[in-house]
Amino acid sequence: MTYSAPVKDMLFNMEHLARIEQVAQIPGFEEAGLETAQAVLEECAKLCEGVVAPLNVPGDVNPSSFRDGKVATTPGFAEAFRQYAEGGWQGLQHPVDFGGQGLPKTIGAACVEMLNSANLSFALCPLLTDGAIEALLTAGSDALKATYLEKLISGQWTGTMNLTEPQAGSDLALVRTKAEPQADGTYKVFGTKIFITYGEHDMAENIVHLVLARVAGAPEGVKGISLFVVPKFLVNADGSLGERNDVHCVSIEHKMGIKASPTAVLQYGDNGGATGYLVGEENRGLEYMFIMMNAARYAVGMQGIAVAERSYQHAVQYARERVQSRPVDGSVKASATIIHHPDVRRMLMTMRAYTEGCRAMASVAAAAYDAAHHHADAQVREANAAFYEFMVPLVKGYSTEMSLEVTSLGVQVHGGMGFIEETGAAQYYRDAKILTIYEGTTAIQANDLVGRKTGRDGGQTARAIAAQIEKTEGELHADGSAAAKVVAVRLEQARKAFLDVVDFVVAQSRNDPNAVYAGSVPYLMLAGNLVAGWQMGRALLAAQQLLRKGQDEAFMRAKMVTAQFYAEHILTQAQGLRDAIVDGGASVMALPMDAF
Amino acid sequence: MTYSAPVKDMLFNMEHLARIEQVAQIPGFEEAGLETAQAVLEECAKLCEGVVAPLNVPGDVNPSSFRDGKVATTPGFAEAFRQYAEGGWQGLQHPVDFGGQGLPKTIGAACVEMLNSANLSFALCPLLTDGAIEALLTAGSDALKATYLEKLISGQWTGTMNLTEPQAGSDLALVRTKAEPQADGTYKVFGTKIFITYGEHDMAENIVHLVLARVAGAPEGVKGISLFVVPKFLVNADGSLGERNDVHCVSIEHKMGIKASPTAVLQYGDNGGATGYLVGEENRGLEYMFIMMNAARYAVGMQGIAVAERSYQHAVQYARERVQSRPVDGSVKASATIIHHPDVRRMLMTMRAYTEGCRAMASVAAAAYDAAHHHADAQVREANAAFYEFMVPLVKGYSTEMSLEVTSLGVQVHGGMGFIEETGAAQYYRDAKILTIYEGTTAIQANDLVGRKTGRDGGQTARAIAAQIEKTEGELHADGSAAAKVVAVRLEQARKAFLDVVDFVVAQSRNDPNAVYAGSVPYLMLAGNLVAGWQMGRALLAAQQLLRKGQDEAFMRAKMVTAQFYAEHILTQAQGLRDAIVDGGASVMALPMDAF
Repeated sequence: MTYSAPVKDMLFNMEHLARIEQVAQIPGFEEAGLETAQAVLEECAKLCEGVVAPLNVPGDVNPSSFRDGKVATTPGFAEAFRQYAEGGWQGLQHPVDFGGQGLPKTIGAACVEMLNSANLSFALCPLLTDGAIEALLTAGSDALKATYLEKLISGQWTGTMNLTEPQAGSDLALVRTKAEPQADGTYKVFGTKIFITYGEHDMAENIVHLVLARVAGAPEGVKGISLFVVPKFLVNADGSLGERNDVHCVSIEHKMGIKASPTAVLQYGDNGGATGYLVGEENRGLEYMFIMMNAARYAVGMQGIAVAERSYQHAVQYARERVQSRPVDGSVKASATIIHHPDVRRMLMTMRAYTEGCRAMASVAAAAYDAAHHHADAQVREANAAFYEFMVPLVKGYSTEMSLEVTSLGVQVHGGMGFIEETGAAQYYRDAKILTIYEGTTAIQANDLVGRKTGRDGGQTARAIAAQIEKTEGELHADGSAAAKVVAVRLEQARKAFLDVVDFVVAQSRNDPNAVYAGSVPYLMLAGNLVAGWQMGRALLAAQQLLRKGQDEAFMRAKMVTAQFYAEHILTQAQGLRDAIVDGGASVMALPMDAF
Repeated sequence: MTYSAPVKDMLFNMEHLARIEQVAQIPGFEEAGLETAQAVLEECAKLCEGVVAPLNVPGDVNPSSFRDGKVATTPGFAEAFRQYAEGGWQGLQHPVDFGGQGLPKTIGAACVEMLNSANLSFALCPLLTDGAIEALLTAGSDALKATYLEKLISGQWTGTMNLTEPQAGSDLALVRTKAEPQADGTYKVFGTKIFITYGEHDMAENIVHLVLARVAGAPEGVKGISLFVVPKFLVNADGSLGERNDVHCVSIEHKMGIKASPTAVLQYGDNGGATGYLVGEENRGLEYMFIMMNAARYAVGMQGIAVAERSYQHAVQYARERVQSRPVDGSVKASATIIHHPDVRRMLMTMRAYTEGCRAMASVAAAAYDAAHHHADAQVREANAAFYEFMVPLVKGYSTEMSLEVTSLGVQVHGGMGFIEETGAAQYYRDAKILTIYEGTTAIQANDLVGRKTGRDGGQTARAIAAQIEKTEGELHADGSAAAKVVAVRLEQARKAFLDVVDFVVAQSRNDPNAVYAGSVPYLMLAGNLVAGWQMGRALLAAQQLLRKGQDEAFMRAKMVTAQFYAEHILTQAQGLRDAIVDGGASVMALPMDAF
């Protein structure tokens, strides 16, 4: 099954929703206009479609394997990663100073989507390396930067994030890995880390582990966690590789999906201690780790969009080929391809609308990230930062939850063939299920949304977004087309439902935290649904205008239909979510624990 | 992971919702009261918990395998099937005349659930054998009955359903398998059948295939299909096994789930023709096959409930053991078991409410089946038949669709561990995905609901059910408890949404079939949601009354909370579904086919 990157949709979002020409006015991004975006996306599409996508099924059939402390990745992965690195893709969004391309996230995010559509398992290695780079850029000493950044950005080395331990998953307060200060300023690290993606592999010369650990005497809980660089091979002063460090892979996991990506158990310090280098200051590890995690969370949201797109393309192709049954409207007098059948169309439209809605939401969020980090005006930075921070749990939580539904529909479109592994649709279904779990489960995203993103500012950011949505509703009414009116009406209903929930969350967080957190995931789903629907509304307006100018009629009409479908079939879930959250909090916690 | 059969909930449903004492007044079921039910369920639970459930993981890890035309099932399966057969379980619902126990479906359905909770893959062999028995009972000649029924009912032989061919899945009009009449009254069968569950295995002496094929000169389409018995081994006049018939397994499928159940490709007639025996009359095969399919569809609905229950039990056990994070309400001042956390509770309650709601719906449907088939009064039979027929697509479609959500939540409760195969939660997620596909996809069930079950009688049965629901609402209001009122209000909203859709379906089926069928699956989901919610409302009323009598307080209170949760968190989806169906039909079909 081939993959065809949705470059046109991505560029449409960048131009009309994320407003890339405004991003290109930010200092440092002067070259990053639409033309650059197009050139970059087309080049990236070639690599993803031609080199990485063909490795997706082989990676599932012949996953990474473990033997004698070493991991062998799927044949072809190492060579593909070499091409990825040599093309400069690892450095796309990273600073020019360290060999990167310095492009904005507005462009980079689309490349992340493509790579993940091509191959979720493969893309995890660059994804985690990006996180390691971010952490070092933000908190690393000049020495650490000098030693590691260029090699990571060039793709010669790769990075990992080491948070989880057997007893410490979502709850990092329980981290037990120890770091003992040494006379030379380094630390000796001892402990076990689990679920370390690409914690060991054969695709790069060195692996740079970023590891959460406790220094002896540190405070209990999350305030006593520090962040360390622990390289697989120590690095000599001249940058060459030195001794093997005391960190070893002891096994990899047998997983339901993303099988090609090795998920390692790493043992630190069994032979005297792994040499680690403190990142930033002691006891501020969680703060730095959040930098990596925020980047990674956004990227995992892109993974949801990516696997949804791939599953959609696979299903469309099958629906065009498979012949079964006569159309109910009598339009064909014999058995026809199943794309003629209304329920197949409903499934494909659902897949398409979710994917396009989340892609639009993520694109707008990426532009806000760029403005938040690089705009010259502090007020603009601040406003964009608040918006972006609100978006991260939505991009991560909503896009991955919808990917479960989309990949399930993708199997369903195939009927019985979907359940046969050789068809390929099942892989997306199995792969996608990790996305709502890692880098913080949907519940963890929802806690973030309720606590840090809504409660902390008394709902101010949430209400500001609602006000922007109301403005779009006005524009849709003013536009006057039937489709625009339908979208305006459903957006208004969903926005009001959202505002009811925001009021509830703000009012009840202290009085009745159980009721508020019982509704946290439904709140996330409602907010994501609304924001993606809002962007589809904006997309409809843009498409309508461009259509009047005679631009790309087929694309613009498709966008309008998809926006209307989103409003009628997805935004309509909003009221039910509101009712469950606002009226249904008590019944969530009412059953005594021993009655389950 | 152990399985514990929910005998108490099953008996509660039978006694208070399905009213088994009324079933026991039907001629032939005089012995089938609550006491019998309890004895049967407890015995069945022993076998399922002790013998069949422990084979579930081994079947996934070491599935059926194929070599030289033969299928070896997972070690232990053959012995477990022997125990199942010797216990008389295959014959539970079948006539005493042929060695069965003659028990009502009201009791039998609960046993089907248990067996499937224990092991979906294992349970498929009895499930399909039941279908073959039903078809022979209804349409087989006395000679066929004499030859096959006792052996099938005793579990010495097993049965299969052979519908699907590579080009003919949902669309049986495309069946090409040929049957050539012979001088001795038998037929020679030629063709290829795929997706034949337990089409070849080593658990029984003989396999009785029920095969759809066309007799030369038969009309085109579904009106030219006949049904044949084609045994793996021909049967001598004395009942002993004779020659090997010309039907051979050429491969089995590599599937995402239910791996222990062999899914065979069967080749008929490569060496001169497989000997087949006509069931009933020529060209009435589809009609007979529907008898098997209706039984099988109900049973697949039970599979959905069964895997949801197993997934729920697994998740509850993990949630009680896994320690992560402090409760948000400050009730524990340290990291606590995750069952303390509101979102984990929301997930567990969602799983529980869906499962109990669907179990209650299926139990009531089973009682209607018994009355429809065996009641002395023709009017009672007719009314119950209409109700049961309406329920079949709901039990099949809604219970299996909800099982996808439930098993996904089951993985989610486990966090990262859920994605690791050894944990066991992933197997339910993989296994469940076939349930919305086989024995007619959800869309096929929805077509049945729209066409035969709603359109054909102008919505009469649907409205009669709504009237019964309205009566329950009145009883809930009269009860007066806060929980009862909440349920009454949500039931009323959902019922009105349902009636709007029924009106829409009845009014538009001819004018705008595309719009109606575009909403067919959402209509099925709305109807299933409502009927299961209605039964939870009735359950709440019963629990409240029993509680006032001081009976089993913990169980009754749990039932009331679960009913309220269902109303607040699941019934609240009804309005959104209504809006999508009634207002959103056009956007489903608006995108031109080449724009996907």
